[in-house]
This record gives sequence, structure tokens and C-alpha cells, in this order.
Amino acid sequence: MFSPVVDELISQLTRLPGVGTRTAQRLAFHLLRVPKEDALALADAIRAAKERVGFCRECGNLTEEEVCRVCADPRRDHTVVCVVEQPADVLSLERTHEYRGVYHVLGGALSPLDGVEPEHLRIAALLRRVERDGVAEVVLATNPTMTGEATAGFIAERLRGRTRVTRLASGLPVGSDLEYADEVTLGRALSGRREMA
Amino acid sequence: MFSPVVDELISQLTRLPGVGTRTAQRLAFHLLRVPKEDALALADAIRAAKERVGFCRECGNLTEEEVCRVCADPRRDHTVVCVVEQPADVLSLERTHEYRGVYHVLGGALSPLDGVEPEHLRIAALLRRVERDGVAEVVLATNPTMTGEATAGFIAERLRGRTRVTRLASGLPVGSDLEYADEVTLGRALSGRREMA
Repeated sequence: MFSPVVDELISQLTRLPGVGTRTAQRLAFHLLRVPKEDALALADAIRAAKERVGFCRECGNLTEEEVCRVCADPRRDHTVVCVVEQPADVLSLERTHEYRGVYHVLGGALSPLDGVEPEHLRIAALLRRVERDGVAEVVLATNPTMTGEATAGFIAERLRGRTRVTRLASGLPVGSDLEYADEVTLGRALSGRREMA
Repeated sequence: MFSPVVDELISQLTRLPGVGTRTAQRLAFHLLRVPKEDALALADAIRAAKERVGFCRECGNLTEEEVCRVCADPRRDHTVVCVVEQPADVLSLERTHEYRGVYHVLGGALSPLDGVEPEHLRIAALLRRVERDGVAEVVLATNPTMTGEATAGFIAERLRGRTRVTRLASGLPVGSDLEYADEVTLGRALSGRREMA
């Protein structure tokens, strides 16, 4: 409608997750309105990230180095490995300040229907790591979704007898209301109930 | 957390309208995950848009040429000028397929509290255009908001006696429910009621 260049920008923005045509238009008009250096700062940040960020040799997390900050940190407990689907999950877990072990980023979850098979995830690397490093505990922190649970089950099966394998607790979110909990979550909260006295 | 380059990408994405930290992280991880050429296509689209898109000499709309497609189209009625706040509004009006005149993009709305005075908008250019082109009607299509109404009022005052000035109708959105209409909208619908028989 405006010009091929604007249409191309809108179409590229539409490819971002959660960005529909209207949002893409709004973002495009914003980028066209702001000072040139602001818009180019975003373009340059994308380019720099794609050119300089890779995956940690050890855990598969994002890093500019060979080995990520967590894996390179000698104060972290390298005998406890928390398995997550995506780099973003590492960020969420780090925010809790509760975890002092290291991570293993799978790069997704098993989903045969979408063509995601075990060999597409970093599962073999995890098994090798457990053997090599004498890992004492693997914390499965994949999402509590169909595919995340299947992935956790698959990995737990592979690791059975080799190390301790644990799974993040499912249950009621803190601050939530029983009345509005879905029945699956409430069922999990019930079956996972803990002794208080 | 991950690397300075990723943090910079997240921080640049946070500057987009409606994008908070969480969304920016999600977008950043998406861009890091997709093939390099896909991410760079977005970076290049931003750069190309900023380098090649400017404002139409006539109406202030976005264009790659001196004059935008609407202004350059001889089939459009150049004696009817629709005044809008932003280029995005042109897109919305074009989508109706109801309008065959041309546009005038102000670049915002009057908002003295935010420092937006008449000289910051393309109002003087509109007045010159009305004189020069013998414009028969100016349709004020600024937003039905406080600032949009103030802008429409200001322009109507300046054009009084020089040409016909109209304003987009306010009222109930089509497909909406009277029960849920806010009282200002319902009041407008009532005062703007039309003869049916």
C-alpha cells in the first residue's frame, strides 16, 4: 500500500511470534517515525546477535564465548544439571536465585507430530555429559505441557539407574485462587501434596 | 545475563511500542533461533525502510517517491482532502474502499501538555494546499479522542469560510451492543441521529 520497502518491513515483522498484521503495521510505523539512529540500533543489534552469539559447547545455552557464563563459573555445582527446553528457561530459573547447579538446554521438546525426534534435541549430549562428569542429579525442568512431559519421561527412562533424576513440582501457582485452578493442575497439586506436620 | 550482545538486542526490542521485557526476550530468542538469513532479512528491512522511505511532498504520507501513490493517482478526487493524524490512518481508511479523495497526514494531534503545538503538525501546509488547489471539502478524520477532537476543532476554525469542512461521524460501532456502549459514545450516537423515514 505505501511502498514496497514498507510492505517488506511489515511482512518481516509479521514473522515474529505473536505479531499479527496490525501489530506489524504499528511497529513498522513506529520504526519509520523514530530518529534514524534508533531504528538502525535495532537493525544492528539483530545483526550483531546473529553474528556473534552461538551455543555453549557444554550446555547449549546462548553465549558469545566457547562456554557460557554458568558453565564457566567454578562456584556453580557442576554435579547438578537442570534440563530445560529453551535458553529463555535458563533466564526464568536464574531469576529465582534458588538454583546453584548448571544447565542443559535441549533446544525444544519431543513432538513427533511436528517432526521433533530425540536426535533433533541435545539428548545424546546430555547422556554423555552425565557419564563423563559424574553428574549426581538431573533436574528435569521441561515445560509441564504434553510435549514437555513426554520429553521428561523419555530422558528419565534413558537415565534410569545412572543418576538421580528429579522433576520440577507441578501444582497451584503461588498467589493463585483454588476456585480458578483448572482441574489438571488441581489434581497435580493434590497428588503431589506434602506433609506439614 | 546471556551476553552483552543478547542484552543489547533485548534492550533495543524493549523500545518498540507495546513490547515489555518478557516479550522482548521472547522476540530475541526467536531471532536467535531462526536461520541467520531470516533474522538478517528483518534487520535489512528496517535499514532499507529508514534509508528509502520519506514523506510525500504533497500530503505527508509515507512514500519512496517524491509524491505518494494516492497523490500521484489521477483517478483520485484531488478536491476532497481527508485529514488524518498518522500514515497508519490512511491504511485504515483505504481498507474501507469508500474514499476516493486524497489525504493530508498531520503527523500527530495537538497536545499542548506534551508540547505538540500547531507548528509541529502539517497544518500550515494543509491551509496552503486548500488555497492553492481549490479544495472543495476537507474531511477531518483525526481520532475521536481529546487531542484528536481539539485538532479537528482547531483546523475547522482556520478553514471556516474557505471550504466545506466535515468530520467523521461518531456513534455506535457496527455490530456492537447498546448495552455495552459507553455513555459518551451513546450520547454522540443520539445527537448525531439520522432521518430514516
